[in-house]
Amino acid sequence: MDQIHFWIGIIATVAFAVTGVLAIADRGVDLFGILVLGVITAIGGGTLRDIILDVPAFWSISSVYIWVALGACVLTFVAESFFTQPQIYRCMLYIDGLGAALFGIQGVDKAWNLDFGLPVAPVILGLVTAIGGGLLRDILAGKKTLLMSHELYAIPVTLGCCIYVLILNFFPQYSLQGSAICMLAIFGLRSAAIRWDLRVPKLFITKTR
Amino acid sequence: MDQIHFWIGIIATVAFAVTGVLAIADRGVDLFGILVLGVITAIGGGTLRDIILDVPAFWSISSVYIWVALGACVLTFVAESFFTQPQIYRCMLYIDGLGAALFGIQGVDKAWNLDFGLPVAPVILGLVTAIGGGLLRDILAGKKTLLMSHELYAIPVTLGCCIYVLILNFFPQYSLQGSAICMLAIFGLRSAAIRWDLRVPKLFITKTR
Amino acid sequence: MDQIHFWIGIIATVAFAVTGVLAIADRGVDLFGILVLGVITAIGGGTLRDIILDVPAFWSISSVYIWVALGACVLTFVAESFFTQPQIYRCMLYIDGLGAALFGIQGVDKAWNLDFGLPVAPVILGLVTAIGGGLLRDILAGKKTLLMSHELYAIPVTLGCCIYVLILNFFPQYSLQGSAICMLAIFGLRSAAIRWDLRVPKLFITKTR
Repeated sequence: MDQIHFWIGIIATVAFAVTGVLAIADRGVDLFGILVLGVITAIGGGTLRDIILDVPAFWSISSVYIWVALGACVLTFVAESFFTQPQIYRCMLYIDGLGAALFGIQGVDKAWNLDFGLPVAPVILGLVTAIGGGLLRDILAGKKTLLMSHELYAIPVTLGCCIYVLILNFFPQYSLQGSAICMLAIFGLRSAAIRWDLRVPKLFITKTR
Repeated sequence: MDQIHFWIGIIATVAFAVTGVLAIADRGVDLFGILVLGVITAIGGGTLRDIILDVPAFWSISSVYIWVALGACVLTFVAESFFTQPQIYRCMLYIDGLGAALFGIQGVDKAWNLDFGLPVAPVILGLVTAIGGGLLRDILAGKKTLLMSHELYAIPVTLGCCIYVLILNFFPQYSLQGSAICMLAIFGLRSAAIRWDLRVPKLFITKTR
Repeated sequence: MDQIHFWIGIIATVAFAVTGVLAIADRGVDLFGILVLGVITAIGGGTLRDIILDVPAFWSISSVYIWVALGACVLTFVAESFFTQPQIYRCMLYIDGLGAALFGIQGVDKAWNLDFGLPVAPVILGLVTAIGGGLLRDILAGKKTLLMSHELYAIPVTLGCCIYVLILNFFPQYSLQGSAICMLAIFGLRSAAIRWDLRVPKLFITKTR
């Protein structure tokens, strides 16, 4: 199981770095900026989580995620025209959704195992793990953040993390199956949002003035 | 006394969440963004303070502040037209000023009791507690931050925190009365600024070019 | 040696505060905003480093850096027309480059001595120490960050930090000389970039769309 998580983590790191770089590439960023912003997209969320949890940043224990993210950034810079092909880009979006699902559930798990602010805080930390890196990238790149778009990205993650916390609380014996199911649920919702370009309905959006 | 602080804290959390949401509602934010940004406005400053102080985030010990903030955000979203009525909004601004006063003095207290970088750091942490959440919200919402406006908001807080540090240092026996007086001073100055729309005089502003 | 580092640190703090203030003065900032943003520019990078390293913020142990930064901010506000003279400003840019060199190498040193995520993390933390404060200032002031400009600022720092990590790893007996040489190398590269207005070549910049 740890093996599976490790490999999904690696794949998710690649996807986060690639989509992170593509999200800002059209603004004229130099290779160095791409390396920094791509790595921040990939590891920023987990770093924020670890800072709030007051445990060492995960990449200080195993630097493989940084190397993988750096490699993915260079690759994206060199082969940008490959990754911006519609079908490839779409594929990366799905993998990015899988990554967000994994990172979210991992964040809940880490907070839960540390007994950190049960039961609310684990959901917050799951969300931070999944979207924190993207928020940092957008802030540093001067882009509108995810919170101001009306994408269905953070909402599936939050729902999945909430359900997972309920499972951990009421059916701790099914935590393993629960984590898999919640990850799939997040991924499924996110995939539906990508596939049919679903967004938050107007009813739930404040009026601009 | 702790009871009083607790209830002012709850009221302040509500006011921060409400004014935090109203400050960005005109940009077309969805309900999820409102929940996240409202909660960040309400608890972000205290979280930054706790991270710098290297103590567990206050909401990991008692999650009541998060629930209160979430409730206030939903309420603001549903009843936006109520809260944007001039006299209600003005009333929220005053309560927000009271909240800033409380949070600032509480921040000084927490740093002082931990012997953290006396005597300068407690003032900094008081200021961080009071305005940190609003800064995070503005950054995430792509708004001009408080530091670039010329509002009299952070200045009263800083003055009050400075005086409180002086009292803690030279008249520790009056710390309780001192905290109440400094809170009132901050609230008074902020209220005057709201009432007469006072701003930083031009003399103290650099010229735009 | 510690004496020398201390004084370079003080000079670097002054330079960071001065250039930090000048970088945003043309946006019409009030004196309070200048104090906050100047201090953040000067001590923000080291603070981020200490938070990630999970050690107390350096200014909680010795507040001299904060006082020096505050003084430099007031001075810059009062004597803005002095500091914006081309030759004085240029001189501050060089000292700022020396500061970035010192802060970068100090950041590597601190992480290395704490055995933090060797060998990759020290480079990241050196970079964070050198440019973190400027990034925070730009975000708070609503300015385009360094990562989106194509300046040769972060790249010399990163190169120097990488070489220093190699020296610490393979020739630990020469760590003292190595730190001096890497600092000079960073300063030299940065000076060349200032002197001849060198920027990242177009080849390494993504196309804007």
